[in-house]
Amino acid sequence: MRLKHNFYWSDEFCEQSMDRSLLINQVGNIFVEQMPFNRLLGISIHTLNAKCAMIELPWKDEFIGNPTQKILHGGVISAVLDNVGGMLAAASIINKLPDEELCNVPHKLATLGTIDIRTDFLRPGRGESFIASATLIRSGNKVCVCRMELHNEQNLQIAFGTGTYLVG
Amino acid sequence: MRLKHNFYWSDEFCEQSMDRSLLINQVGNIFVEQMPFNRLLGISIHTLNAKCAMIELPWKDEFIGNPTQKILHGGVISAVLDNVGGMLAAASIINKLPDEELCNVPHKLATLGTIDIRTDFLRPGRGESFIASATLIRSGNKVCVCRMELHNEQNLQIAFGTGTYLVG
Amino acid sequence: MRLKHNFYWSDEFCEQSMDRSLLINQVGNIFVEQMPFNRLLGISIHTLNAKCAMIELPWKDEFIGNPTQKILHGGVISAVLDNVGGMLAAASIINKLPDEELCNVPHKLATLGTIDIRTDFLRPGRGESFIASATLIRSGNKVCVCRMELHNEQNLQIAFGTGTYLVG
Amino acid sequence: MRLKHNFYWSDEFCEQSMDRSLLINQVGNIFVEQMPFNRLLGISIHTLNAKCAMIELPWKDEFIGNPTQKILHGGVISAVLDNVGGMLAAASIINKLPDEELCNVPHKLATLGTIDIRTDFLRPGRGESFIASATLIRSGNKVCVCRMELHNEQNLQIAFGTGTYLVG
Repeated sequence: MRLKHNFYWSDEFCEQSMDRSLLINQVGNIFVEQMPFNRLLGISIHTLNAKCAMIELPWKDEFIGNPTQKILHGGVISAVLDNVGGMLAAASIINKLPDEELCNVPHKLATLGTIDIRTDFLRPGRGESFIASATLIRSGNKVCVCRMELHNEQNLQIAFGTGTYLVG
Repeated sequence: MRLKHNFYWSDEFCEQSMDRSLLINQVGNIFVEQMPFNRLLGISIHTLNAKCAMIELPWKDEFIGNPTQKILHGGVISAVLDNVGGMLAAASIINKLPDEELCNVPHKLATLGTIDIRTDFLRPGRGESFIASATLIRSGNKVCVCRMELHNEQNLQIAFGTGTYLVG
Repeated sequence: MRLKHNFYWSDEFCEQSMDRSLLINQVGNIFVEQMPFNRLLGISIHTLNAKCAMIELPWKDEFIGNPTQKILHGGVISAVLDNVGGMLAAASIINKLPDEELCNVPHKLATLGTIDIRTDFLRPGRGESFIASATLIRSGNKVCVCRMELHNEQNLQIAFGTGTYLVG
Repeated sequence: MRLKHNFYWSDEFCEQSMDRSLLINQVGNIFVEQMPFNRLLGISIHTLNAKCAMIELPWKDEFIGNPTQKILHGGVISAVLDNVGGMLAAASIINKLPDEELCNVPHKLATLGTIDIRTDFLRPGRGESFIASATLIRSGNKVCVCRMELHNEQNLQIAFGTGTYLVG
């Protein structure tokens, strides 16, 4: 997950910029609507604020990592965990910016990127839909570390992740 | 990456089964032709034997993880690294099976699965096509550990991975 | 952390062997009393059962990873997290053994070993004493995955870990 | 591994400061002579420059992670890998500083710290002495990623590591 360079920020960006939650919403929309691979995944945002991020992944047959069982490919799981961790890292950047720097959010987010991610696959990725959630375990000026989880619609945990993000 | 349960082994499986390289080829084909998410990725096999695995990933616009730059989404990178490590783990299982157990390859591979994977993103995933390669650093009866790399067509390294696979 | 080969099981092992909690206690004692590096660390057991493990690490000046600040060396942190995860993996093996196999605990534990561990350093390791705790997130017949945390005596989290253990 | 705050830089620091290799040597000495836990480990420097770091660890009975076998405790292995990666990260910082900033090396290194480290245990840690080596796989202004290996005196590989370091 990389948020390099200019995104298509909405025109009203400057007027909205004083409101952190609106900004965080805009960043969430960039992730789900403007990133082609995320459109392919079909993720949608459940919750996104400076403390917690939750996104939903629908089941799609293309995600199968196995011809005879309906199980998510591990790469889909890693991608969703990386996304939810990156969204939380972005929200936490916005939350910590002083008011006078809120105009610089697009520039600030341009440096956001995943440094490394570890995924632990706990159970076969079986389900009708999935929720990926992230919590912040280290929130520094340069680096954030997030802990991520993937559950299916029956609240069975499928995977666990730890991601380190460059934020400044 | 999970190779659970029965795959569509070709009819001639039993006759071929004494030849380890044919078996390894068959397993490679299962990965690239029978796993829906891998068909979506469009990976193809470059090299696959008990010592080394190399696969190719073409550029596709759907892989973009960023609307303004042509850069691979981190999830695509993790998926490809997981695949190449899993293919090498499978080849190494086949290579170590005694002759009389070669008929059990489908059963043996049914337990193959990724336990955990770490991806280190080194450079933006820019390129026209990509080569993912894997080498075995631990080859046990129950667990294999692989080291993976992703380079673009100009041989620039984009990512590095370490994967632990359940093999027995 | 490796529990290879025969440990000095107490003489009464056979008679005690029907009681899982006594066995788990014995294994805990092996970790803290019979492993030279753990004696050097000076760890002691706080809680050890099939669901949870907690051990205490005292402050010692030899643990300093920095001459001008009283901060734990990262290697001490990784060592303590590895220990607490390994102890929980051992307890979970004992808990899952059928009664008739409890006599084989020493043999079963001989194969226990850490496959890989990730440590995330969240804050400088400052404190007077430290508690490392572990919970099981994957408990298979061959592999266990534990999530570990290190807090100081003021309950400030210092590190986070994820460990994969070979258990069968 | 953390290099926070002031170290005991030798008096001649200012005069020497134009020579990067002398500075790198000084930093190496800080690691092996001024960090109490490293003195306990007894590590010594084999090679240290901006491209590569190699340190030696002698066998000591206190390092045993097992009472019946002479095998290194995993925590000792993680500690040595963390050290060699951190030393290389420090050397690479010094190497990239412009001449006029070389006086700020102590300040620059004060922010150096391990963000996360993964250790893969490949073989039992048996040997008479050990060499830990590191190579840089990502060298940024804020974050370095190193790949580390541990071999024994017979050149048998015992462990493999990947470490992410905050460098700016």
